[in-house]
Amino acid sequence: MYDSDFIARCAQLAMLLEVSANPKPGNVDREHDFENLRYEHFLGSAVGTYVVFKKAASLRGYPIGGLILEAVEASDAWQMGGNAHFGAILMLVPLCMAAALSSDVEALRKNVGEVVKKTTVFDALQFYKAFSRVNVRVGETEALDVRDPASLDVIEKENLTLYNIMEISTPNDTLAREWTEGFPRTFRGAEILQKRFKSGHSLNDSIVYTFLSLLGDIPDTLIEKKFGGGLAEEVSAMSKQALISGRVAEFDEYLLGKEINPGTTADLIIASLFVTLLGGLRF
Amino acid sequence: MYDSDFIARCAQLAMLLEVSANPKPGNVDREHDFENLRYEHFLGSAVGTYVVFKKAASLRGYPIGGLILEAVEASDAWQMGGNAHFGAILMLVPLCMAAALSSDVEALRKNVGEVVKKTTVFDALQFYKAFSRVNVRVGETEALDVRDPASLDVIEKENLTLYNIMEISTPNDTLAREWTEGFPRTFRGAEILQKRFKSGHSLNDSIVYTFLSLLGDIPDTLIEKKFGGGLAEEVSAMSKQALISGRVAEFDEYLLGKEINPGTTADLIIASLFVTLLGGLRF
Repeated sequence: MYDSDFIARCAQLAMLLEVSANPKPGNVDREHDFENLRYEHFLGSAVGTYVVFKKAASLRGYPIGGLILEAVEASDAWQMGGNAHFGAILMLVPLCMAAALSSDVEALRKNVGEVVKKTTVFDALQFYKAFSRVNVRVGETEALDVRDPASLDVIEKENLTLYNIMEISTPNDTLAREWTEGFPRTFRGAEILQKRFKSGHSLNDSIVYTFLSLLGDIPDTLIEKKFGGGLAEEVSAMSKQALISGRVAEFDEYLLGKEINPGTTADLIIASLFVTLLGGLRF
Repeated sequence: MYDSDFIARCAQLAMLLEVSANPKPGNVDREHDFENLRYEHFLGSAVGTYVVFKKAASLRGYPIGGLILEAVEASDAWQMGGNAHFGAILMLVPLCMAAALSSDVEALRKNVGEVVKKTTVFDALQFYKAFSRVNVRVGETEALDVRDPASLDVIEKENLTLYNIMEISTPNDTLAREWTEGFPRTFRGAEILQKRFKSGHSLNDSIVYTFLSLLGDIPDTLIEKKFGGGLAEEVSAMSKQALISGRVAEFDEYLLGKEINPGTTADLIIASLFVTLLGGLRF
């Protein structure tokens, strides 16, 4: 079985490598800050959350919703840029828990699908608390607006587990879809990344390449929420094009200029990096 | 007293913030890689070493030389770029140990001077083992060349502690001087950094400013060893000038072009950042 320190370090390093890779079109990277969310905020968040990933990987039966809430809180230990890693935390907490039950990546793939199914109503409530700390665009159903306190009543009355919440969000949210479908995009990203790196490309190049590949195939949830599905599909087509033409810097400038940030794809990349590091990547 | 997790996280975040600050003249930063030592290697090293800083801060009486050796080994857990953080480890291990005995920065200042005095001959031997893993330019005396196995015999025969070794290196090595003089440059750097940050400058700017200030006052040991004291003093004069003129990017390009890297100043900055973070900096 993977050791809890190793698991937590893979999670942390995944966050650091993702935010550092550049040019990572439209997102914060080591050469681009947003006005209120800067590169340093991501470093602070990655350092702050480590202890929670370690807890998640310690097999002590901590509730998953509580860990997500703790990680969101720990993300702010130093940095005041706000929500740096909410989606990443949503991916990494179950991945860390499942890694602690696994001795290789294949086992992880099986276990992570099981871990998320075991969530409770309490997990759902904690998850909504985590939401209320950050300003995240989420897939809402009318009955379950996270900004509406009445949602908490609905959860309790209808006995909705966190997994149920993810089922409800699955049609509109890639990360929820990862939860309910066994993280297939996460593992696909890990395969793309590994293959690219093994063929002799630098780690930075391999991460950017994987980012463009996933974005090309999967319209970004955050862009969908902010700008609608039409633009999200357009951006995916542009990403495919950038991968073929190699004009990544141009694509980056275009998205940055229009403040279109594929944040969900960044979250996926972190999950893929976690799997790759756990599998033994060294650079 | 500071908590061990908090102490170790301050050490890790100090490493990450230092390597990320840019332009940091002549050194690896988030926009500059060296050919074989890249930015990612520093991220990997910062993630790898955390557990050793946590041990150092746990008050379990681990020997300081053994911790330095362990940290140097842990630095390579993922990255294969080589010596990313040797000097930083030499600063951070005693600082973490002293922080565990301290309830504020003033106490840390007193305690760190005491911690280093308590080293043993065994610490000196472990320290030399750590050296043999990395390719560091060090202040050597003829009798104590770290590349010469006979040095180990000399240490044992003459009963030299690690503190004694630092005393011998003090005339030629700023980090050794920190050990024997109570880390005055570390704390001065922390004061400069804090003052600059509090006056409204960004964290990145404050780190670069502190780097230039320290480099301006203290000829860089690594430059001295590689190129001689004359050039080291010239670089310090240039650093002062860059601080006044604001032409930091130019200074950076000049040093990078000539492969003159003020690595010891980067180690000092990490120590200063550690003290500042421990003192409560948030950004």
